[in-house]
Amino acid sequence: MKTVNVAIMGIGTVGGGTYEILTENHDLLLKTQGIDFKVKKVLDKDISRIKRFGIPESAFASSIEDIISDDEISVVVETMGGVEPAKTFIEKVLLSGKSIVTANKELIAKHWPSLEQAAKKGKAGLYFEASCVGGVPIIRALQEGLQANNIEKIIGIINGTTNYILTKMTEENMSYAAALKEAQNLGFAEFNPTADVDGFDASYTLSILSSLAFNTCIPITSVYREGITGITVEDIAAGKELGYVIKLLAIGKKNGTDVEVRVHPAFVPVSHPLASVGGSFNAVFVKGDFVDELMFYGRGAGARPTGSAIVSDIVYASKRTSPLYTTFENNGKLDGSVNISGDLTSNFYISVSVKDIPGVLSSIAGIFASNNVSIESVVQKGKDGIAFIRFLTHAAKESEIRRAISEFSELDKSNRVISMIRVLEN
Amino acid sequence: MKTVNVAIMGIGTVGGGTYEILTENHDLLLKTQGIDFKVKKVLDKDISRIKRFGIPESAFASSIEDIISDDEISVVVETMGGVEPAKTFIEKVLLSGKSIVTANKELIAKHWPSLEQAAKKGKAGLYFEASCVGGVPIIRALQEGLQANNIEKIIGIINGTTNYILTKMTEENMSYAAALKEAQNLGFAEFNPTADVDGFDASYTLSILSSLAFNTCIPITSVYREGITGITVEDIAAGKELGYVIKLLAIGKKNGTDVEVRVHPAFVPVSHPLASVGGSFNAVFVKGDFVDELMFYGRGAGARPTGSAIVSDIVYASKRTSPLYTTFENNGKLDGSVNISGDLTSNFYISVSVKDIPGVLSSIAGIFASNNVSIESVVQKGKDGIAFIRFLTHAAKESEIRRAISEFSELDKSNRVISMIRVLEN
Repeated sequence: MKTVNVAIMGIGTVGGGTYEILTENHDLLLKTQGIDFKVKKVLDKDISRIKRFGIPESAFASSIEDIISDDEISVVVETMGGVEPAKTFIEKVLLSGKSIVTANKELIAKHWPSLEQAAKKGKAGLYFEASCVGGVPIIRALQEGLQANNIEKIIGIINGTTNYILTKMTEENMSYAAALKEAQNLGFAEFNPTADVDGFDASYTLSILSSLAFNTCIPITSVYREGITGITVEDIAAGKELGYVIKLLAIGKKNGTDVEVRVHPAFVPVSHPLASVGGSFNAVFVKGDFVDELMFYGRGAGARPTGSAIVSDIVYASKRTSPLYTTFENNGKLDGSVNISGDLTSNFYISVSVKDIPGVLSSIAGIFASNNVSIESVVQKGKDGIAFIRFLTHAAKESEIRRAISEFSELDKSNRVISMIRVLEN
Repeated sequence: MKTVNVAIMGIGTVGGGTYEILTENHDLLLKTQGIDFKVKKVLDKDISRIKRFGIPESAFASSIEDIISDDEISVVVETMGGVEPAKTFIEKVLLSGKSIVTANKELIAKHWPSLEQAAKKGKAGLYFEASCVGGVPIIRALQEGLQANNIEKIIGIINGTTNYILTKMTEENMSYAAALKEAQNLGFAEFNPTADVDGFDASYTLSILSSLAFNTCIPITSVYREGITGITVEDIAAGKELGYVIKLLAIGKKNGTDVEVRVHPAFVPVSHPLASVGGSFNAVFVKGDFVDELMFYGRGAGARPTGSAIVSDIVYASKRTSPLYTTFENNGKLDGSVNISGDLTSNFYISVSVKDIPGVLSSIAGIFASNNVSIESVVQKGKDGIAFIRFLTHAAKESEIRRAISEFSELDKSNRVISMIRVLEN
């Protein structure tokens, strides 16, 4: 048995969950891990947040220096969130030789290399399982369970807020605005929902996970990003007719030296394992060259699930002899051998309206053909002299799709593109 | 960089997959793990199986002693299958101080304690990720990702053969016999299918996984087991009407000191994540006290996925400083603090036929009530003077259900129980 003294910086939702696990499951951890965990110091600018857990005053830290100067503390949890002062605090802690366990995906996605440098200098460990997909041990799976594989693909539903909104729109025929409102009322979405609905949050996680999956730095600036604010109930209904559900997907693909990383809404075939991931649940679908297809499903947020990932990292940190978390040196730059594709390839759903006159379908089909876009299926419905046409394309380059669409728009001033949604091939 | 020399005992399907990974992905492992893996010796009684991989003759082992006496070999893979001679070989290897990586679920389920003793004596490691759920890193998840949790429940679809058969019966309305025949023709089922269809294979995995999940030995003899041979297309159709799909489930539950471990077919609500696990895929649903619900999905068998798990364990073994794989001492016996429940509790689907006379439903309902079985819903359909009645019960003890059924059968000699299938609560 050994004793490990832990400090917690920021005791809000996730920090609180972490504290609860370390106290409520203290004896479980002692029995199974042989470690007597003690929360020795808690730092929070709001003392009342520390007090609500009944933490004794002797454990209140008055500054980051209080934690750094305590030689008995070996692991420090960062659950403050945001970039600053978290970054400065973490760097100080790492340089002092104590390991960091963090749930801060924005910080890791934006500043991983400099944090890793600090960890290296301090001979400390930087652990961030909790930064990706909450309670789902996806980093552990990639790092400790799938080492044998070249990972070819990761496809995640990794933002619970947008999945909740899209599920509500799908199951209850709600508008985007109404579903967002409900998510805000239930505390699933922030008052300013941009980080979630515009895909920033998902892009942070994707940057981290694809770096780990592909063993090379995939900077956040390489991630293509598109949110869900333009999705309509009509899109969802059209998808349903075609056997699809709409999801905000985070996709990382590697084919030889070509890498694609992108966050956008997509139609997912109902038979795909990701299609049934509903509500605020998250999932990551992984394909490796030997293990084939896997999926990891669970809660991507919340005090208790995220706390579970943090405590897992605390245990992991307490047992590791080598502090290096990752299998590659993250210097923040693209490895010269990796080529990030700017021109992505997808199947597309495109719906348009045109004047319903003879030959109109033929001329649109001609535009697709001349731009190298091959059509899988077409449905045309007419109403009041207007034809509504829905196309499903085979895999096509976005540049070619965009060129086709621009030619289509120029063809007649009444031509209108209603929706353009990528389709996940099964 | 370090070199790790590996030996493989038994180069059939899974041993062959392991060899392929160690050669095809040699450079990946060198780059990401810093380890130069070499397959130094291969043992197989059938030399032609070694030759088909183009392995040089210098690497052919002529006996187990050839491997044991080679001081450069530190990790030995056992992919022979079956209990003997695998058990004797593994014990010799462990006692010689070399670590074992095995995919042999029957052997681990039946002889884990004596193997662990040999590992302890030899100061070697015993690794068996590949023995459970093929390529899905479920042991790693339990041991390295979910340490923070009391695991309350694991529910697995962990036998691909039976899942393939049940999926065929469900989707193509095939009889059990026809679906089994097809599975045999495709190589998914053995000529003698007992190990799969009678639930033995699933019970081995459940014994191992529930031991790890609950941190205590759950002997194979404690696992209740029932196969799929009695399932009919009528059962499946009735389930469909009620919103269920049928699956062979392996269930481990822990509530305080009470543990239930059982393998049997069950109706799964279509909305449950396990419902969409089709064909030969496997999945394990886990509930922890903090992390809540998780699911791990992937290929439970096959050369390449199982090889992936073996190579993951080889890497893991090569990096571990402490050889102990598990967090508890497995002495083969139930921990005194654990109580294995013999009288299981489930929701039930029960279908019966009776003479269609006034008052018959009331008298049957009376039998259920007097045996403490509470009814959730009833559907009665009459035809040619016979009433077919289907009951869904609330959670009830099996002993009480059986008593009710026996009283029902005694009530009238024409009374007949058509099916009795457990129902997974959502």
